[in-house]
Amino acid sequence: MASCKEGDRVAITTDDGIYEGILMPRPELLPKGFRVLKLDSGYNIGIDEKRIRKTDLLEAYAPKAQRRAARPPRKGLPTVAILSTGGTIASRIDYRTGGVSADYTADDYLAMLPYLADIANIRARKVMELMSEDMLPADWQAMARAIKKELDAGADGVVLTVGTDTLHFVSAALSFFLKGLERPVVITAAQRSIDRGSSDAFMNLACASTAAAKADIAGVVTCLHGTTDDEYCLLIRGTKARKMHTSRRDAFRPVNDTPVARVYESGRIEMLRKDLPKRGKGTCETDDAFFEKTALVQVYPGMDPKVIDFYVDAGYRGIVLAATALGHVPTNGKKSIIPNLARAQEKGIAIVVASQTLYGRVHPYVYTNLRRLSVELGCLFVEDMLPETAYIKLGWVLGHAKRPEDVKRMMLEDVAGEITERSEEGTFLS
Amino acid sequence: MASCKEGDRVAITTDDGIYEGILMPRPELLPKGFRVLKLDSGYNIGIDEKRIRKTDLLEAYAPKAQRRAARPPRKGLPTVAILSTGGTIASRIDYRTGGVSADYTADDYLAMLPYLADIANIRARKVMELMSEDMLPADWQAMARAIKKELDAGADGVVLTVGTDTLHFVSAALSFFLKGLERPVVITAAQRSIDRGSSDAFMNLACASTAAAKADIAGVVTCLHGTTDDEYCLLIRGTKARKMHTSRRDAFRPVNDTPVARVYESGRIEMLRKDLPKRGKGTCETDDAFFEKTALVQVYPGMDPKVIDFYVDAGYRGIVLAATALGHVPTNGKKSIIPNLARAQEKGIAIVVASQTLYGRVHPYVYTNLRRLSVELGCLFVEDMLPETAYIKLGWVLGHAKRPEDVKRMMLEDVAGEITERSEEGTFLS
Repeated sequence: MASCKEGDRVAITTDDGIYEGILMPRPELLPKGFRVLKLDSGYNIGIDEKRIRKTDLLEAYAPKAQRRAARPPRKGLPTVAILSTGGTIASRIDYRTGGVSADYTADDYLAMLPYLADIANIRARKVMELMSEDMLPADWQAMARAIKKELDAGADGVVLTVGTDTLHFVSAALSFFLKGLERPVVITAAQRSIDRGSSDAFMNLACASTAAAKADIAGVVTCLHGTTDDEYCLLIRGTKARKMHTSRRDAFRPVNDTPVARVYESGRIEMLRKDLPKRGKGTCETDDAFFEKTALVQVYPGMDPKVIDFYVDAGYRGIVLAATALGHVPTNGKKSIIPNLARAQEKGIAIVVASQTLYGRVHPYVYTNLRRLSVELGCLFVEDMLPETAYIKLGWVLGHAKRPEDVKRMMLEDVAGEITERSEEGTFLS
Repeated sequence: MASCKEGDRVAITTDDGIYEGILMPRPELLPKGFRVLKLDSGYNIGIDEKRIRKTDLLEAYAPKAQRRAARPPRKGLPTVAILSTGGTIASRIDYRTGGVSADYTADDYLAMLPYLADIANIRARKVMELMSEDMLPADWQAMARAIKKELDAGADGVVLTVGTDTLHFVSAALSFFLKGLERPVVITAAQRSIDRGSSDAFMNLACASTAAAKADIAGVVTCLHGTTDDEYCLLIRGTKARKMHTSRRDAFRPVNDTPVARVYESGRIEMLRKDLPKRGKGTCETDDAFFEKTALVQVYPGMDPKVIDFYVDAGYRGIVLAATALGHVPTNGKKSIIPNLARAQEKGIAIVVASQTLYGRVHPYVYTNLRRLSVELGCLFVEDMLPETAYIKLGWVLGHAKRPEDVKRMMLEDVAGEITERSEEGTFLS
């Protein structure tokens, strides 16, 4: 027992049976007197030391092999830059320390996925190392600059790996920040970490690299599992994707939009629509001003109208309401938020109305209450735009425009597929 | 022209063609000099008077017929109470005034849907007249009392008609408010008003009445279209339904749950699960204390941590966070909300964590940041509960309990199907 160290592959014999796996550090939360074993399934179990009869060393921990020299680029293959920013896809556990490492190089990716070298000449770089819940507008701006740098250096496409939690905020931000983008920027991630047998990281990375290398599209798309099986990945426009499940591999769904393409691990790309911009010869400009005092507020019955005042008094210049259905807000008695919105309006704050149903489009003229919002208060009803995308877009618009008429024009004008003429019905719930 | 009045059925001949329909009052927003015609499709069009060559009267407006005396109840049929509270389903336009009327009686329903009389002895009553975006906890409490009254008076089941926008808040509230409910309470509504050819009101009302009359279930369920066609209505548990589309007839979807049954207009009920409580002989008690200083806050990158302080300082005792995915919140630098949550925690405010992905379940132990929330701050991770349901439940729990340990126990204990052992995967997106 004493001879087995964390990181070693061992077989632990207990009263109940034998467990094989890698010895892990004990998490703080687990009482002393427990050993933690990472099973081949990827799950960790805690074993009471009192129940352990013996521990056999199967394979001693071997420190990470020396990095090989970068491969020489192969002629005739496109070039793809893979930029890593953190998140589950970049979370590989170091079995010695229990810490998380995201220090990937091109060769790390190639070592894990040798067939990436057949898709493209890969160059990879770590841009930052953050879980996506901690990302802020400045991080999206840094990503935009890093992407432009790779495109300017000749990459035919860029793969950006991100944590899934706020991936759709990232994809929306980059859709607005990368102006005149003429190549694919493909955002991918993993719902399950790369050291688990069931990880979706490998297929997502391979499909994203394929899309970046050869998909005939220009723009920002997400690329993750399209089904719970490893059938294909879906490309979805960056402004129309949303994480719709906490853990499923196919959590990213197109909302009010037809997906762009299916990408198979075999390298096949099945285009699902023909109306999108095609790949060109240019790269892009970054246009990433973002006004941070922009808020996203979910509306609900019983909500405190003063929360609107909170944002007004804190110097906010824009509020996105995730209103109910067609765009309603409470209008009744003391709980009406209309006076508070009117005050915000007087102070020149842009009020944008999107729907918390997510699917479908808001509509300012169906009911009397909605006409009050749209006509009297000048709220901007943003059609079939997701509330999260509306938040990103409003921050971006306020970074560029001050006059209400300019804010209105920019918000209601489709820039990156965030407003579609007619919401697709076919991609809704089963 | 002068001889045709609003409410009359007319044929208007213009330069472009002939339009048939009912003359409507001109909405304020439309400039003078326009006539408004309600076409048989249900849509209104505005016609410039300058373009009108002639207007022919087809059928003069007839005031509402005298109400017939209530039918005598038929023996052997169950009794169903239909309670109306407003919303689109109760919005019938009076073509003379343009106003909305929701003054339904049993005979109004029977006149519109004569076959309701074959389903049950119907008695109907208007409880209130509100669009659902304006409903407040006091209204949910009034509904609970009205439902209990009908059940105590012998109704075999109750149909409640509500506006769709916050229907899932209503259904969740009643799921907690009606204690020991032994009969079906079926909440229905319409996405399109009853005077439109494409209205879903008729089928929804018929199916809801069928379910209230004879479904072998006890509890609160929603009953609306299950598909975009008129195939069947779905019964969904009141704590697991959510409006997921602004306008589609099948907007209400089961989230993390298998629907209870399909109900066909023919009167057939196809049960989809067998694990739910069956109809009994008792009625229910109302247990509807609700603490109104309860908030629902959507988490997003760049959010203002001070919004948590706003609720703390305003005397709130509970906050539901619609966190990202497994339950994350921003933890980074100045934008971390952890210090603000810690302050709330010190003041005894309950922090509940649900997921903004809606589908799936939160999990407090996967990532380090989540362990901070759950262990250090005592945040309550409410499994696969919808954020909206968690908001309703927290208000209800805080109406009953003050001690943190009681709030915790009640929040994490399944009361009305809001927490399921294992979230159904099959009802997710297509």
